[in-house]
This record gives sequence, structure tokens and C-alpha cells, in this order.
Amino acid sequence: MPLSRANEVSRGARDSKGVLYVVATPIGNLDDITLRALKILKQVQLVAAEDTRRTGILLRHFGIETAILSVHAHNERARIERIVSQLGRGESVALVTDAGTPGISDPGAALVAAIREAGFRVEPIPGASAVAAAVSASGVSSQGFTFLGFPPVRSKDRKIWFSQLSEASRHRLVVFFEAPHKVRKTLEDLGQLVKRPIIIGRELTKLHEEFVSGTALELAARFEAPQGEFTVLVPPVELDEQAAVEVTQDSVIEIFGQITESQQSGSKRDAARQTGERLGLTAKQVYEIIERNK
Amino acid sequence: MPLSRANEVSRGARDSKGVLYVVATPIGNLDDITLRALKILKQVQLVAAEDTRRTGILLRHFGIETAILSVHAHNERARIERIVSQLGRGESVALVTDAGTPGISDPGAALVAAIREAGFRVEPIPGASAVAAAVSASGVSSQGFTFLGFPPVRSKDRKIWFSQLSEASRHRLVVFFEAPHKVRKTLEDLGQLVKRPIIIGRELTKLHEEFVSGTALELAARFEAPQGEFTVLVPPVELDEQAAVEVTQDSVIEIFGQITESQQSGSKRDAARQTGERLGLTAKQVYEIIERNK
Repeated sequence: MPLSRANEVSRGARDSKGVLYVVATPIGNLDDITLRALKILKQVQLVAAEDTRRTGILLRHFGIETAILSVHAHNERARIERIVSQLGRGESVALVTDAGTPGISDPGAALVAAIREAGFRVEPIPGASAVAAAVSASGVSSQGFTFLGFPPVRSKDRKIWFSQLSEASRHRLVVFFEAPHKVRKTLEDLGQLVKRPIIIGRELTKLHEEFVSGTALELAARFEAPQGEFTVLVPPVELDEQAAVEVTQDSVIEIFGQITESQQSGSKRDAARQTGERLGLTAKQVYEIIERNK
Repeated sequence: MPLSRANEVSRGARDSKGVLYVVATPIGNLDDITLRALKILKQVQLVAAEDTRRTGILLRHFGIETAILSVHAHNERARIERIVSQLGRGESVALVTDAGTPGISDPGAALVAAIREAGFRVEPIPGASAVAAAVSASGVSSQGFTFLGFPPVRSKDRKIWFSQLSEASRHRLVVFFEAPHKVRKTLEDLGQLVKRPIIIGRELTKLHEEFVSGTALELAARFEAPQGEFTVLVPPVELDEQAAVEVTQDSVIEIFGQITESQQSGSKRDAARQTGERLGLTAKQVYEIIERNK
């Protein structure tokens, strides 16, 4: 007979036992770390890290000398035993991944589950997350969102994945990640299913951070040999239909006219650029419409 | 003729124009703020805040004296004009909500969209998010997740919302928020559709933070007059079926036997507690099964 569970998952014993802190770290800019994360990373006896080299850079940058232990998919089982025994001795451990919030599209979840199962307290130390950052700066209004991680590689899996994406994006914003060398193919595949404009955040929090908008096929052409991590946002169909300003030739001509009239001096090129900024078009696109309708 | 858009959404002009920073703030513990967020909040000419009182407490705590302007659903339009004109003068503005990352289940998105539309650069300053924090410390292994915001209030809307939840949680982890005075009703409604154990994070990052697990109906009974914000995690069906350890009477008896045998001394009560910790049961539940099967 299967039994239901109604236990406290994380309040193992607040007194003598160690705590596993799940600590979010920067996704690009090293100053995207919280005061509490710095305190915890300094205070624990061990930092369990997905990528010891990257975590080493972070800790050295802030003068933190805590020991680092590598924990990844291939040594997870042995590491869990070691971490459980450290926690049992009353020592605390911080879990970090190479960037962002652990357990979101990375191998941290199994470790966290095992530590909980062993009766230890697990505490999140919140901080940078590429998903939350991209959603917050996208301006897409949505009651919630779906995050899908990275697209799978095998074509059979991809087919299922993209159809799930298409279905999920009917109701709400969908967010996923893609690596630079795969982004073109992924945008081409996405463009077969989704014709409305999407938004891409690239190199979030870094020097060359940018958000670009367009259809998936347009953006595929734009990112031929790109760099950096990609966060792709697919706005929901329903909100898109409600809220999108439909850009018509008439609205281009009208706004271009208003801007040229209000300019005391200034070139047509300037007016085309300003019109484009208002409507989400390039200056060239505006110019072509104006020329065509003279 | 509707045209497609392929413009840079946010690189208005990096030089003379102001920037809108979308800044994540703490969700409970004031030290859950990043170094960069503090720098930006100090450096901008204006902080646009959902709740000026809460933001005032935060800024004062860190000795920041930047002016605060209230921006909420009812004055958003007028505020947008004011913020656009400030940005146009080369001043920068930080957008914050009362807690966490703006644009996730709050009114920030419309402002961000309008500022982008007006041609200004929008930059996310990532930080605390209750969604990411809860997922990271839950230990639920899932390729992505769906965040649904708060359940609606009207019963017709709730019916649709819960059926979307049920559907979404077939494939991946679903996360939603609930207010303390509504959590019991919501868990009872959820329990009609979802019978497997869920996880609740309560008062995340605060003194009385806890994660508890059980069926929705069990947890509804537990939270009769609760306090604090609730973050509810509904693990996916598919992973649940694969990964869940099915707790049977036999497994309880077997593990209890192993533990009592390995103990040199120690009470049955201790053994029951340890067995419970391993299987996610209370000591009392374990004891009852042992007594029943003597």
C-alpha cells in the first residue's frame, strides 16, 4: 500500500546539523551576487561546484578562501555520501553551479533531493537567474511563463519538444536557452511553427548584452556566427493577438509625416530612423515603404 | 499589410539617452540584494517603485537617498510619460517592485514594453526571485518548469486555471504563488485534481522559512491559519512515476528492521524517526505500521 507523505522536508534539525545552502551566482557580471551569498560562501566549510575553475575565479575575486569540491553528473553519487557525512558532523556546505540559480537546467536537483532525503535542512540563497532576468526586461506581459531548458539534440526528441513549446506558448510566455553554435538551426526549426515576433536576449548582464525582436526566421538570418548565450522568449499567442500594435503601411506613412513636419531641420534619414524606433522597424524598412508610396 | 519586426529592441542609443534598469530586490531577507543592484539604485536619478513604503525601507537600510516615484496599475500611463521624458534628458531610472524580480506576476511589464517602444535601452539587474529560489531548493528534477502566478479568484476562471495546471504538470514541474488566507481553499481544489505529493515553500528567505511535502489535501489540513507567502511546487507526473520511491508497508518494515539491528543501543522511537526520515513519513506513521504488522 503506497502511503502519502506529510513530513517537513527541510527542518532536519536546526541546531547541531549542517545546512546545505543552494546559492545563486552571477550569470555574467561578477557584481550580480548578493550580500548574503558572499557571507554564506565565506562561512561554509565547503563549496560544492559544478565547474571548480569558474567558481574558483568567483571566490578569488571576492577574496573567499573556502575549499571547493567538484560535483557533476559523473561523480554525484560519491559526492553525496561525502557531503552527507560533512553535514552530519555539523559542517555546512554551499552548492553552486557555473552560473545562475542551481537546479534550473543543471545537475543540482539530484544532490538537493538526496540531502533532503537524508534529513538535512536545505536553504535557497536567491540571486541571479537568466530566466527571471530575461522575462523581467522583455516587457512581455504574461500571467506566468514556461521555461523549457535547452532544446534536445536528437531530431525525434526535438519534434516533440517543439510541439510542446508551440502548445505551451498558446497560453503564456515560453522561455528557453540555446548555445551560440546551435541557435541558427533552432530558430529555423522554431520558425516553422511560430510565425509571430519573438524576443532574444543575448549575453545577458555582459558588456554586449542585447535584446532583439523579430520573427524566428528573421533572427536566424541575423545570427549567422554569433557568440554568447541565448535566451529566447516566445510571447503567448493570446496576448500577442490582443496587445500587438499592428504595423501597417498607413501607420508608417502617417508617423513619418508627423515626424518630418515637426522637425525644424533634420534629414529624411533621421525621420526614417525615428519612425522605425516608434514602430519596431529598421530605418531601411521605413524608407522603402515611403519610397514605394510616394 | 502587417509588417514583421526585426529591430534591436533595447539598444536605443548607448550614449546620451538614459537607461531603464529593471532591478530585482529581496523577497524577505534584506541581504538578498546584489552589489550591482545597490550601485544602480544609488546611481540613478529616480527609483520607480510599486510600493514606495517597502522600497523606502530597503533604500534607507542601505543608506540610499535616490528619489522614489510610485508606479502601479492605476497611474501607469501618466508615469510612463514622465519616465520617458526623464530618460530623454539623459537621466536613468530603476524599476523595482515590492519584492523579487519585476515583470514576474506584477504590473512592471507594461512599463517596460512602453519604454522599449519609445526607443530606450532596458537592462535587467538580476537578483532574488521566489520562483527560482523555490525550484532550486526543492530538489525536484525537471527539464524546466511552468510558473502560473497566483490562482484566479472567480470560480469559472479557477476551473480553467486548475485544468491548465493539471495539463502542464504532466510534463514538467509547475510552480505557483498563493496568499496565506487563500491557501487552504486552493490546496483543497488542487487536491481534487492532483493526488501525488507536492512541495510547499513558505516564508522563503525569512526566519521561519520551511519546505513541507505531502498531498495537497494533507497540506490543506496542516495550514489552517497560516502566515507568510506560499510558493507551491507540483512535480511532474512523468518524473514522479519514474523517480518516486514507492513507500510500501514492506519497505517500512524492512528499513525499520535494518535500523534496529544496526543500532547497538537506542530506542524504538529513534528507529521509527530514522525510518521516517528515510521514507518521508512521520515517526508516528512508521510506528503505527510496525504495530499493525507485529
